[in-house]
Amino acid sequence: MERIKRNERLGVMLSTLSQTPNQIHTLGEFCEKLDAAKSTISEDIDILRKALDKHGLGELSTIAGAAGGVRYRATVGREQARAFLEELAHRLSDPGRLLPGGFLYTSDVTAHPATARMLGRLLAQLYYDAAPQLVLTMETKGIPIAMMTAHMLDAPLVIARRDSRAYEGPAVKINYIAGGSGEKIETMALARRSVRPGQRVLIVDDFMKGGGTLQGMVDMMGEFQAQVVGVGVMIATAQPQQKKVKGAKSLLVLDPSGPNRGVERVTPSDIY
Amino acid sequence: MERIKRNERLGVMLSTLSQTPNQIHTLGEFCEKLDAAKSTISEDIDILRKALDKHGLGELSTIAGAAGGVRYRATVGREQARAFLEELAHRLSDPGRLLPGGFLYTSDVTAHPATARMLGRLLAQLYYDAAPQLVLTMETKGIPIAMMTAHMLDAPLVIARRDSRAYEGPAVKINYIAGGSGEKIETMALARRSVRPGQRVLIVDDFMKGGGTLQGMVDMMGEFQAQVVGVGVMIATAQPQQKKVKGAKSLLVLDPSGPNRGVERVTPSDIY
Repeated sequence: MERIKRNERLGVMLSTLSQTPNQIHTLGEFCEKLDAAKSTISEDIDILRKALDKHGLGELSTIAGAAGGVRYRATVGREQARAFLEELAHRLSDPGRLLPGGFLYTSDVTAHPATARMLGRLLAQLYYDAAPQLVLTMETKGIPIAMMTAHMLDAPLVIARRDSRAYEGPAVKINYIAGGSGEKIETMALARRSVRPGQRVLIVDDFMKGGGTLQGMVDMMGEFQAQVVGVGVMIATAQPQQKKVKGAKSLLVLDPSGPNRGVERVTPSDIY
Repeated sequence: MERIKRNERLGVMLSTLSQTPNQIHTLGEFCEKLDAAKSTISEDIDILRKALDKHGLGELSTIAGAAGGVRYRATVGREQARAFLEELAHRLSDPGRLLPGGFLYTSDVTAHPATARMLGRLLAQLYYDAAPQLVLTMETKGIPIAMMTAHMLDAPLVIARRDSRAYEGPAVKINYIAGGSGEKIETMALARRSVRPGQRVLIVDDFMKGGGTLQGMVDMMGEFQAQVVGVGVMIATAQPQQKKVKGAKSLLVLDPSGPNRGVERVTPSDIY
């Protein structure tokens, strides 16, 4: 049998790893697939790790121990993150995007694969250490970003609904106070079988104004006895400063009355 | 300056290409980034193409002409597709998943990154030649799969809503006949600015029973003067055989009264 060359091994390993972000692959998996010794695979990983690192294309890590192996994370450097967020903020500052009620039209942006992917990378990166086992969002606009965050974290996505539909089976239903103005009582439902007690949950959404919907999701996780390890959103309004949910992180800030009033309504937050 | 070695170039190129499926990158982009001649980059592409092909990890193609370059598609071989669909069908055949009304609980499966990714690959693969410029789905359950299909096609995702929300701006609203039984009239709304006349649209959803919702999406695209180039779903019921929408392709079939009645309710269709 023909020996598999290094170039080929590198291609196979990198393709496999980058298509399954944050998933640990054992060295044995690659040894078998590529008919190579562990030491050879380790050298290959070292080559790939250095190349990705040098060009800011993500992180390859070796994890020791019984559950160990190699894992790819699509991490983003501060400079690249900042450039992306500046450009995104500029696009979202287009006056034509402002809708009645202080909302912003963002669906075209959040559902564009390149943007959703990068937002997923940036949100996932904030919570790698918290090791979420689930990503929770509420329908509808946040789902594309939440899905890409889930993809980057290798964690299942769970979607809360405005009402429980027949085809999701038994559901837990809660009321929550939505909207910065008006304080409307809304309902949120989540399939009973979607979350198990004790699971570590990251909450992701596209937009935060009063924070009521996000706090509703936190309360919902309380009903499931799950543990919220983080709340991350794409964009938060500057007002009200006090949000109903505590500790949420936002990549962008919407401030129509900010210092650049009428010019740049959206700016990157200080996270990246 | 130190010359960049082939191993490093391969890592950078493959990482970039596989993170941006179906997107054409010019050779010039890599020449510049990697300080290499076009002939060298072409050789690199050839090495990667062969490695991916040999191990069933997708397709690298060189496109000639002014808009040309190199493009990665996460294609799946027939054998791998079949094995995945058999396994998925088996999981979905669990009697505990059957819900009142002939529905199936699938949310845990469709929103798991590994599954959603593979479903996205399989659906995208059916429509590469149709070159869709948009992927359309209707909220909520189909969004994760539709998003991964959009990611694989490098096409924006557009989401129709059950009602138009204030924060999406002006919308087009239509009525459509939903449900195989009952023939209920439902409403569907889509933001006016989300689709332009003449755009090529692929419709994706998780579940098809009567096909009314999918036909509603086709009608909606008529209102936008857009062109539907395909309709793809994860799972379709065997009954009714006549669907309201024509030409839909489904990866799986749900047939509670099939030859394996009560054992394997879900089986792969004959597409893969």
